[in-house]
Amino acid sequence: MRAEILSIGTEILLGHITDTNAPYLAQFLSELGIDLFFISQVGDNQGRVTATLQRAWDRAEVIITTGGLGPTEDDVTREAICALLGETPTVDEAYLAELQTFFMKRMGHFPLSNTKQAWIIPSATMLANPIGTAPGWYVQRDGRVIISMPGVPREMKKMWEEQALPQLRALAGGATLFTRILRVAGLGESPIEERLGELIHSTNPTVATYAKNDAVDVRISAKAATHAEAESLVAPVEARARELLGRHVFGIDKATLPGAVGELLHPSGWQLATMESCTGGLLASYITDQPGSSDHMRGGIVTYATDLKTRYGVPQEVIDQHGVISDATALAMARAVRDACGAQVGLSTTGNAGPDTQENKPVGEVHIAVVSPKGEVVRRLNLRGERGEIKHRAALAALDLLRLHLLGDV
Amino acid sequence: MRAEILSIGTEILLGHITDTNAPYLAQFLSELGIDLFFISQVGDNQGRVTATLQRAWDRAEVIITTGGLGPTEDDVTREAICALLGETPTVDEAYLAELQTFFMKRMGHFPLSNTKQAWIIPSATMLANPIGTAPGWYVQRDGRVIISMPGVPREMKKMWEEQALPQLRALAGGATLFTRILRVAGLGESPIEERLGELIHSTNPTVATYAKNDAVDVRISAKAATHAEAESLVAPVEARARELLGRHVFGIDKATLPGAVGELLHPSGWQLATMESCTGGLLASYITDQPGSSDHMRGGIVTYATDLKTRYGVPQEVIDQHGVISDATALAMARAVRDACGAQVGLSTTGNAGPDTQENKPVGEVHIAVVSPKGEVVRRLNLRGERGEIKHRAALAALDLLRLHLLGDV
Repeated sequence: MRAEILSIGTEILLGHITDTNAPYLAQFLSELGIDLFFISQVGDNQGRVTATLQRAWDRAEVIITTGGLGPTEDDVTREAICALLGETPTVDEAYLAELQTFFMKRMGHFPLSNTKQAWIIPSATMLANPIGTAPGWYVQRDGRVIISMPGVPREMKKMWEEQALPQLRALAGGATLFTRILRVAGLGESPIEERLGELIHSTNPTVATYAKNDAVDVRISAKAATHAEAESLVAPVEARARELLGRHVFGIDKATLPGAVGELLHPSGWQLATMESCTGGLLASYITDQPGSSDHMRGGIVTYATDLKTRYGVPQEVIDQHGVISDATALAMARAVRDACGAQVGLSTTGNAGPDTQENKPVGEVHIAVVSPKGEVVRRLNLRGERGEIKHRAALAALDLLRLHLLGDV
Repeated sequence: MRAEILSIGTEILLGHITDTNAPYLAQFLSELGIDLFFISQVGDNQGRVTATLQRAWDRAEVIITTGGLGPTEDDVTREAICALLGETPTVDEAYLAELQTFFMKRMGHFPLSNTKQAWIIPSATMLANPIGTAPGWYVQRDGRVIISMPGVPREMKKMWEEQALPQLRALAGGATLFTRILRVAGLGESPIEERLGELIHSTNPTVATYAKNDAVDVRISAKAATHAEAESLVAPVEARARELLGRHVFGIDKATLPGAVGELLHPSGWQLATMESCTGGLLASYITDQPGSSDHMRGGIVTYATDLKTRYGVPQEVIDQHGVISDATALAMARAVRDACGAQVGLSTTGNAGPDTQENKPVGEVHIAVVSPKGEVVRRLNLRGERGEIKHRAALAALDLLRLHLLGDV
């Protein structure tokens, strides 16, 4: 089965917005085993939209459009579908009444132009839009399907996942897809693929890596007639991948590093505190991004000025002897902040985030340390990138060091 | 003049990456006054790439492609252009020698497959790639231009801005474009457009708003025969826009809020310190994102646990009487952190970032305060969004409050 995606909206062609709808939908099609050969972006012009639809109709069985379903003259997707199919729209009176009630409540009157959002054609059924006014269409004719959804990503995604996707999945053979994501820290994509070896080439389940901002995802997806069957195809591959990746796997699916750390701290009741130099508060911010982090996070001190480090407990002689950017200072900071914040676990970062050399230490040299009732550990990192990336990578590395320490590995 | 963009790469069709090259290029075309009616994404398939190129050739004068210039069999852009034009490639010996030297140095041998990166055809000139191995092509024939560039955004952007864009600008009439961006804080896009009124509809310069992550940009662009002329067209409109937006304009072009705050602190030599509750370190992190921030940033305390607030100087009775999420506590935090960190200026945040109600205060209620030798100011905010967005908006609002305070406005 072949599909084609059409993203409609002049703002895309002017470069005002980036079309994120197409890649979102493309991922699902790939998982459903539907071939996607073309994506097109077209402006709000009925002739051009109709022509592009016609071409898609000639070479694909599934056409997915987003955008152009608003109430204004610029919104031409419905008109283009009518022109393509030679069908004449009628007004769905029940939906029109709903729309009228909605607008009366919100604006005190019903803009007549909105009537076209209640249009329907013989080949189409409505896709409801519970969080917007523009419903979509699910069109079936001549062995082809057109799925038309709004361009607003939030509205589109809800309509897609709850209404369009289940219908398309049934059409694609009713196969169920089960996906397990292993979240991996401390390894890049290439070394992960090397470790996974032949698994990367398996076909059902498929195994693929995706570099995300906070970790690398290893995605294991199986297709089968039932959910249970798909799950049982994934299970042995997941087990094997976990063997190959070891403790680098910090969680599954939507897990985050700060969440994993929180879960490891929970049983002991230990409280965490941070002392940050080069990450400037970002480490504490990542920890507190996690809802419920107040259960294990006491707080932190950003000791950007060197004398604040000594004010909050780092011995002056350590700094004099080893410099601010050193293992010794990182350790002293982690020790100091436990007392300063009344915690059991101290976590610290000190280093050079750039752009200039500091204390003769190159940009990207960062030292991170953990101190807990289990012991102490410190690491020196050589990170690449701009200032913001170095801060980001240093904060993630500190979280991962803490995780491995709590697991008893370091 | 009409243009068409073709983004080539199977990873786009699989949804593994989002095509950001097309919107980047689209912005330039719009500024050059070149009409862009279609963008297409096609996989690494020679037949489909050639067919899509053929269609673009039939309906546009300028065709821009990205991707498919690598050395492997999957990379088919050169082949597709040759097929379209019926031209046979030859090897550019000088460039081949360069490539061979490069690979010998880096890998100790020259992979033969890379030879095709030195291909050239009669209608094309090379676009050099100083940061990668794949050069681009600038093809001119039959009154049409094809600009072919690599898919890696960093390589593509450099090639585009330094080599392709100047040629295309000359082709589009040699007009020079001058753009001034006004960076605006504390107002959303709609109120900004309301204030700008008729300016939004002016044609040369054009005036448009773009919501960015950290501010709204008002972009004023004029086209003229010379740079000086374009600048003089922008100047009066910029002056008028500044009148209408007042102190909401915090800088131009690449300015940031933390940078603007740093510049305002500089003349006085005042040092800054932060005490954060709900933003959890993000405010300090934003301040320290700015290179050179150690000149004015002492550091900060993340008082996530309530008793850390009192430990670092917030009077217990203020918390008992007003609660943690209150103007009084925000002010007390800003006062306390000046002493705790030895600064002249204290900046604080306290509030509920969600997901649950706290102290009977709704998600999104945040109090921010500034204390300086100039006086004190506190604000209550009602922010929308998820936890991460609330933290982000609270930190930006605190920075903007500090900016207005340093300007003497609040």
